Amino acid sequence: MTNYANRGMQLEQEIKASNLSYQQKGIAVIQKVATPLKKTKDSAFYSEKSTVDFLGCLNGRGIAFDAKETVNRTNFPLSNVHEHQINFLEKYRNCGGRAFLLVRFVKHQETFILSSVQLAQWWKEAAYGGRKSIPYEWFCENCETVQSRNGIVVDYLRPFLCGRVTA
Amino acid sequence: MTNYANRGMQLEQEIKASNLSYQQKGIAVIQKVATPLKKTKDSAFYSEKSTVDFLGCLNGRGIAFDAKETVNRTNFPLSNVHEHQINFLEKYRNCGGRAFLLVRFVKHQETFILSSVQLAQWWKEAAYGGRKSIPYEWFCENCETVQSRNGIVVDYLRPFLCGRVTA
Repeated sequence: MTNYANRGMQLEQEIKASNLSYQQKGIAVIQKVATPLKKTKDSAFYSEKSTVDFLGCLNGRGIAFDAKETVNRTNFPLSNVHEHQINFLEKYRNCGGRAFLLVRFVKHQETFILSSVQLAQWWKEAAYGGRKSIPYEWFCENCETVQSRNGIVVDYLRPFLCGRVTA
Repeated sequence: MTNYANRGMQLEQEIKASNLSYQQKGIAVIQKVATPLKKTKDSAFYSEKSTVDFLGCLNGRGIAFDAKETVNRTNFPLSNVHEHQINFLEKYRNCGGRAFLLVRFVKHQETFILSSVQLAQWWKEAAYGGRKSIPYEWFCENCETVQSRNGIVVDYLRPFLCGRVTA
């Protein structure tokens, strides 16, 4: 029986567990956040504009990212990403922070780091009539994968620590 | 008539407005956050351990801080700060981020930057039987003040940008 309530949450749970490990080891402080929603005009605007799932700090550098899962085998549909998330990641990167997506292909059991720069390029192409999804093969060729390592369920910070990702 | 519902919220509102200015000017991306609360054992633990009000990025550097107000004239009671906030700010600083409190003395209409290092020292002294509050005069002598500037309601990032605060 498929548990629909938890669908798409596996990666998020694994990231939370990993964040606890990172914090305990003193490697990084990364927090699952939710922008508070208020019914005032001001706050509503504020909330809409700035939501990503995770914010934190690694070696002094600010980090912002979202976790995405797809059950597709062949591509990651850009409809999984909201425009305000793209905008937020762009702004965050422009302020010198690391901004990216963690994208999991559930059927392949593979998780990739998609930098905000890469994401923005695909998004822009889609907006100009290009394809609305990113091929799985493209991820394999262009993105770092994330592995379990040293008791960290998804050691997604390692590619950054090793300098393999400069996002 | 005093509006108790909004008491202590003035500084937070001013920070939110300032954050919008910072974002629009491309200076920094700072977000008001709330750790999502869930009724599972895991998440409850996670939430309790890691909550501060604001997280973001300035010139690539991670930023974490809380906003505090006191109506006291002569001191800032340490009871305004929770132990898990102290711990979080410490961990954040140890990962290279900027971690601090913005402390407003409402009666003096003055707002100070209290670094996590300074805060931790006072907290430790209090734990060993020292005073449970930080004197207003001490803030005046040891902390940078925050001013309105260039249309930014509380330009609390300026002391960092000018290198006057290294927290």
